[in-house]
Amino acid sequence: MKHPESFTRLVDHLKKLPGVGSKSAERMAYQIIDMDEEFLKNFATSLIDAKQKLGKCSICGCMCEDNLCEICKDETRDTSLVCVVQTSKDVYALEKAKDYQGVYHVLNGVISAVNGVSPDDINLYSLIDRVNNGNVKEVIVATNPNIEGESTAQFIAKLLSENKDVQVTRLAYGLPVGGNLDYADEFTLLKAIQGRRKI
Amino acid sequence: MKHPESFTRLVDHLKKLPGVGSKSAERMAYQIIDMDEEFLKNFATSLIDAKQKLGKCSICGCMCEDNLCEICKDETRDTSLVCVVQTSKDVYALEKAKDYQGVYHVLNGVISAVNGVSPDDINLYSLIDRVNNGNVKEVIVATNPNIEGESTAQFIAKLLSENKDVQVTRLAYGLPVGGNLDYADEFTLLKAIQGRRKI
Repeated sequence: MKHPESFTRLVDHLKKLPGVGSKSAERMAYQIIDMDEEFLKNFATSLIDAKQKLGKCSICGCMCEDNLCEICKDETRDTSLVCVVQTSKDVYALEKAKDYQGVYHVLNGVISAVNGVSPDDINLYSLIDRVNNGNVKEVIVATNPNIEGESTAQFIAKLLSENKDVQVTRLAYGLPVGGNLDYADEFTLLKAIQGRRKI
Repeated sequence: MKHPESFTRLVDHLKKLPGVGSKSAERMAYQIIDMDEEFLKNFATSLIDAKQKLGKCSICGCMCEDNLCEICKDETRDTSLVCVVQTSKDVYALEKAKDYQGVYHVLNGVISAVNGVSPDDINLYSLIDRVNNGNVKEVIVATNPNIEGESTAQFIAKLLSENKDVQVTRLAYGLPVGGNLDYADEFTLLKAIQGRRKI
């Protein structure tokens, strides 16, 4: 026996969400039809609203509702220090550390030969313009610590190597705070030894 | 730094879905804002549609779009055999076994002292009316094999005990097919021994 059409349509849409398979989509749909209609109308509106209202900051590319994001609007931030990240999510993650006072540049992607993403497909050349035409002193490349993030970092460093006023740095590799030494993989341990510091 | 308001509102709605916590709601929201606007509009419509179009079958209480569900509409089904289940989901699960030719009765709940659910709160007395006023010969109680399902089954059996034309049965307890004996818990094993059959 097949489910009613409106039910199946809902399940099909839910299945497109990350980490939601057929079984959980069905479970969600059963719960959704027991929910309050008012709530579901608001849920539906929030889906469309988020898509329509959220754009990208015209300076750094971070997700925001206005032309400029909160950080680019903030005049107390140090615009000579630019941290380059892959996604807006990373901006929120780094802001949680509360120590960084510079600004960001969101690539909204990463260079990947495997996935066919070239430097033109991401928000990369606007970073170069921004650095070469601004008062930037340091670019901290905070792309993910994996092959794609690393090669994107190398690519940025190369593009900026001619600008002698700018220093390009990379986030430190090492042991995660609160972790156990014997849980760390060999590459992390190697990087931690290479990057050891005097105490 | 806080997320934009429309983003937070979306996350709050997603968090209400079963099995979705703060972290996964956020992950979903990030993916949603990268989705196609047309898809999101259809998604939003499917949420409201499912709620508005899906009602309950006037005979058995199963989820359906019309007044009667597919099974109650089907004249080839044996209406003298009624299988009682807790949710519409269970109907679809049992239909997958493809052997059962009777009809269903969906309680849309289970009697639970802990959760304050009394027999009046679920679709139970309509079952008694249906059985006493129809041609029903057997009622198979297929509530879940746990304390609440069991006590609901006992309650139904008691209510129907005065009707001498109707036999009330319960699904068999035992080992799941394809399982391992040493993975089964002691209660299941006990029930499997008690319910042993000649081969």
